[in-house]
Amino acid sequence: MIIVLKPDAGEIEIQHIVDRLEQYGFKTYLSKAAERTIIGAIGDERALRDKPLSTLPGVEKVVPILKPFKLVSKDFKKESTVLDIKGIKIGGKHIAVMAGPCSVEGRDMLFYIAERVYRAGARILRGGAFKPRTSPYAFQGLGEEGLKYLREAADSFGMLVVTELMDPRDIDLILKYTDIVQIGARNMQNFRLLKEVGKAKVPVLLKRGLSATIKEFLMAAEYIASEGNNDIILCERGIRSFDTETRNILDLSAIPVIKSMSHLPVIADPSHGTGRADCILPMAQAAIAAGADGLIVEVHHCPEEALSDGDQSILPDDFDLLMKRVKIIAATLERHIEE
Amino acid sequence: MIIVLKPDAGEIEIQHIVDRLEQYGFKTYLSKAAERTIIGAIGDERALRDKPLSTLPGVEKVVPILKPFKLVSKDFKKESTVLDIKGIKIGGKHIAVMAGPCSVEGRDMLFYIAERVYRAGARILRGGAFKPRTSPYAFQGLGEEGLKYLREAADSFGMLVVTELMDPRDIDLILKYTDIVQIGARNMQNFRLLKEVGKAKVPVLLKRGLSATIKEFLMAAEYIASEGNNDIILCERGIRSFDTETRNILDLSAIPVIKSMSHLPVIADPSHGTGRADCILPMAQAAIAAGADGLIVEVHHCPEEALSDGDQSILPDDFDLLMKRVKIIAATLERHIEE
Amino acid sequence: MIIVLKPDAGEIEIQHIVDRLEQYGFKTYLSKAAERTIIGAIGDERALRDKPLSTLPGVEKVVPILKPFKLVSKDFKKESTVLDIKGIKIGGKHIAVMAGPCSVEGRDMLFYIAERVYRAGARILRGGAFKPRTSPYAFQGLGEEGLKYLREAADSFGMLVVTELMDPRDIDLILKYTDIVQIGARNMQNFRLLKEVGKAKVPVLLKRGLSATIKEFLMAAEYIASEGNNDIILCERGIRSFDTETRNILDLSAIPVIKSMSHLPVIADPSHGTGRADCILPMAQAAIAAGADGLIVEVHHCPEEALSDGDQSILPDDFDLLMKRVKIIAATLERHIEE
Amino acid sequence: MIIVLKPDAGEIEIQHIVDRLEQYGFKTYLSKAAERTIIGAIGDERALRDKPLSTLPGVEKVVPILKPFKLVSKDFKKESTVLDIKGIKIGGKHIAVMAGPCSVEGRDMLFYIAERVYRAGARILRGGAFKPRTSPYAFQGLGEEGLKYLREAADSFGMLVVTELMDPRDIDLILKYTDIVQIGARNMQNFRLLKEVGKAKVPVLLKRGLSATIKEFLMAAEYIASEGNNDIILCERGIRSFDTETRNILDLSAIPVIKSMSHLPVIADPSHGTGRADCILPMAQAAIAAGADGLIVEVHHCPEEALSDGDQSILPDDFDLLMKRVKIIAATLERHIEE
Repeated sequence: MIIVLKPDAGEIEIQHIVDRLEQYGFKTYLSKAAERTIIGAIGDERALRDKPLSTLPGVEKVVPILKPFKLVSKDFKKESTVLDIKGIKIGGKHIAVMAGPCSVEGRDMLFYIAERVYRAGARILRGGAFKPRTSPYAFQGLGEEGLKYLREAADSFGMLVVTELMDPRDIDLILKYTDIVQIGARNMQNFRLLKEVGKAKVPVLLKRGLSATIKEFLMAAEYIASEGNNDIILCERGIRSFDTETRNILDLSAIPVIKSMSHLPVIADPSHGTGRADCILPMAQAAIAAGADGLIVEVHHCPEEALSDGDQSILPDDFDLLMKRVKIIAATLERHIEE
Repeated sequence: MIIVLKPDAGEIEIQHIVDRLEQYGFKTYLSKAAERTIIGAIGDERALRDKPLSTLPGVEKVVPILKPFKLVSKDFKKESTVLDIKGIKIGGKHIAVMAGPCSVEGRDMLFYIAERVYRAGARILRGGAFKPRTSPYAFQGLGEEGLKYLREAADSFGMLVVTELMDPRDIDLILKYTDIVQIGARNMQNFRLLKEVGKAKVPVLLKRGLSATIKEFLMAAEYIASEGNNDIILCERGIRSFDTETRNILDLSAIPVIKSMSHLPVIADPSHGTGRADCILPMAQAAIAAGADGLIVEVHHCPEEALSDGDQSILPDDFDLLMKRVKIIAATLERHIEE
Repeated sequence: MIIVLKPDAGEIEIQHIVDRLEQYGFKTYLSKAAERTIIGAIGDERALRDKPLSTLPGVEKVVPILKPFKLVSKDFKKESTVLDIKGIKIGGKHIAVMAGPCSVEGRDMLFYIAERVYRAGARILRGGAFKPRTSPYAFQGLGEEGLKYLREAADSFGMLVVTELMDPRDIDLILKYTDIVQIGARNMQNFRLLKEVGKAKVPVLLKRGLSATIKEFLMAAEYIASEGNNDIILCERGIRSFDTETRNILDLSAIPVIKSMSHLPVIADPSHGTGRADCILPMAQAAIAAGADGLIVEVHHCPEEALSDGDQSILPDDFDLLMKRVKIIAATLERHIEE
Repeated sequence: MIIVLKPDAGEIEIQHIVDRLEQYGFKTYLSKAAERTIIGAIGDERALRDKPLSTLPGVEKVVPILKPFKLVSKDFKKESTVLDIKGIKIGGKHIAVMAGPCSVEGRDMLFYIAERVYRAGARILRGGAFKPRTSPYAFQGLGEEGLKYLREAADSFGMLVVTELMDPRDIDLILKYTDIVQIGARNMQNFRLLKEVGKAKVPVLLKRGLSATIKEFLMAAEYIASEGNNDIILCERGIRSFDTETRNILDLSAIPVIKSMSHLPVIADPSHGTGRADCILPMAQAAIAAGADGLIVEVHHCPEEALSDGDQSILPDDFDLLMKRVKIIAATLERHIEE
């Protein structure tokens, strides 16, 4: 940690700052340049992050040197993590595709879509049973009935299930049916929920919050890891922007940036990331070209009848084309889609 | 709802859209202008919001006419709501000030601060017992012990308590000790939590999410109201921006804008809204001048020792000045601080 | 244009609005639904955009039906425009790559870099002679000397030149040396400059402003087109976001979105779009996968000595790899790099 | 400047970085902590800003210690600057109000509005003769005719004129008629224009760019100051946000933040800052309460007929109320409106 002092900081203030730092267990060194004095603090910087150093008289700016997360960082583990979830690998050379309807609306529709996405090459079935909806008057999901259908459909085709957990009280129920627990964007900083899935030691798909910085995203992952659960897949799903042409801006540069900071696999969600059916194919291609370790895509056999997110779902035929294209692009980068 | 068609939409597509709308129970009217055909849909628009109309072939754009929320809107109730929480009024001519430490760190500090903010004119004591912290390694609050101190301190001075609920499993515990339940910015779209406080019929302080639009903010309030709880205080607490000089941008224009759309009272949080101690006084003044129905301010007797948010806390003496100033500004607008 | 009235708008207000619209030459129709009355205005909507209709008493909201631009829109011209600039095509099946140093720093460096990027497959040489620099104390470019080197180097290898125009007073000078005039992001709404390059009938590379919506971007292009110049290449170069890990967020979904609205070709700038050398290769790949009609890339033989933007320049060897990769990805989409 | 090294940076890389820094004329010191080595560089940091230090092998992060601007900073001049423009003071205890129509639409309307705003207490007349318009089809201003009317009207009432310069070619024309030259938000980084008004030594009203950070804003002011012109008034006029309820978000915390960094006076523009007539009064009050040194407000006698920005103009009667209110609020802060 570097503490930059105000130009008029006096000896008493400097001594007070040094005393505080030493009281926190840090070694300090002082460096007086022409225009500013700076104090370096050597020790476990994470212990200092929490201290309101900027309120100390004479302090102009506090500059952290280390990243605020540890277990999920590249410093902690250099090589990329490759998760193996019941035989499906994610990370390294392995690209995993998750697909299915936004909400589970019924048994038949789910089996139909599951079969179509399986045949196209997806190995993880997505679908919501508990839905976070902006309006209290909108369809809120089928609940446990939806979870049962998901499990059944996935088992029929030899797929894994990923579904969202919204409430810590539902965790046992969700764990009965799913292989991967999704933490949605709105809950990225629901710290209690993060701790619960951390303790549950189940693979977690953690979505980036709507306006979360990459550091905050990795801190949320650190919450899970700090409970001893390292089976975390990060998901870039679009961030809020000033332009309303798309629902969100899919921040694909987050993929190489996260990979430079963390060992965890990162996938992309072009459905939520754009909110527009016509953008899903190009952005799925782009995500793989940018180095994503997977995709999560909403597919519906009749988007105009979907009970949620129809606007951002694609047809099974379009998903076939998408898979064909991403397989080729993956191959040019010497990677492959897990099948 | 107005549906604007693509320039090349044909008769079959138009008929299909009309059929869909009538199937949903809407009356339609068609209007062909030079460059575009538009279809108006008359009926309960909220029922249509949820339908993926934009996926219908031939549709260029779907334009809602009504706001998505109802119970919290000015259409529903014209006159401003004045809450009366155990004798403290908020709204209309009444401005209420909530103040206290970020976290309850101990009994003595809390009593000291409570006394100081009470003497300066605050009638609602704030303080966190369960803290949402970005880092899993940071101080997470005293839990029930903190709640007890809050209740005791408030009772000693005849104040109300406001404290945050983070987890639906804590609601009974929190309700034992508090008068107003705070839903934090990170939980603004934790819909389960919103429903719980809706059912609990307790006064709620709902903070705006970091990147929530005003419509989304009011939809979150609608979740609470839709469970039959209308005792809602909205709180503008800063939104995320591209500039990092302040932690957030306190969006004061949200105050008149919300008041043009909703009957609920709105307060401002200059502490989180700026994240800088030196901005709290000017922004508190500005919030009252912009028409806020109250303030929530972090006060600490020794910010450099605070276990959380010391950077954005002010000293009791500074709070005295703040109260003196906002009382005068309130008076120029023919309003007064509740005491 | 649709005018939505307030719930309490009375007959006199409605009549006043209708009179205004008819005075502006519009036909109107009235539609009274349960909760709102709406007025449709039929006529040349662009003429109405400029009118402050929202100030009319009784108006709640004004909803435009048409896009604000015309000549650059898909409504005006359905098929994609393919520019042919002295034999180099951009658009349709043709992908064009522009590469070179940020600033022209000298004759030798420019010839060396030009040769390298030419050999890798770039056919348009980029380089700044007049530089917009955030600091008045930074290197501002070589001026005409730089332009001369650019022309010479390009001619030696049979390349085209693209360089930035910052000041209307420089236009004759710039036109002496360049094939394509670049309008930088900071000047996207420098309307005088847009008109000048419109009148000059020279091919224009128009960069998206740092916080320009796609509609505003296309309106800037409309300024150029409205002067009779349709040789416009749009360039997505990153937008401002709340995260500072990258200098900007390269908004790749803008590519399919613009293509759904306009017939003009769109390229991407992964150098400015991310500001990080390690993101340029993945984001160049992603841009082509998302459907970009070209790339503009900063290449420098020794980034650590570059006088500007060294942080976001790649080495010639890295550019070789980039070109190899984007050629394969282009081929999978049945497109090719112009050579 | 502090250079933080990657954890695996070796001796050769460290030596190379040190050599570079010394070659640039800096003294260096090395500090090895447990997890990172850092190098401090002592010398004129502004000279280093321009160097691509982050491209040096082994560098993880470059942390500037000083602010990038100098002449406009508080380090350079501690006490607040009070401008005196022909007897009207801005800064310190003096608050100056600029008011008038968005565009000069004709002689009569301008004289009427000028008289009204003068009587209410404004001493600086605003009005556009050359208008930056998003659409090429919109009213572009009366040009020199408008400038003449402005001068005439201002002289009749003993007011000053402020009007916008958009093109360096217009500077002599503008200077014939105006007392203060406005640089609009879209031109905040039109560096050529900044240099021209810097050389002209005329008082400048510099508006913050739509997505300019406060540091970038102050760097733009530094451009003007670096040419020897210190008569600069900064203007917060709203920044771009994700919410579209208001045209922009008026960032009032920018006022105390700028005042902590710079000695220049800062005013606020609630008209552009919100784009909504109903927000102007509360936000003008709030701006003064936040410490603004002045206001610039659009006033029109018939907003529904205004040729530009009618949506964000207020009536002369509303301006009377605004002035009454801001005078009282200013007085509570021991300041006064210049009259």
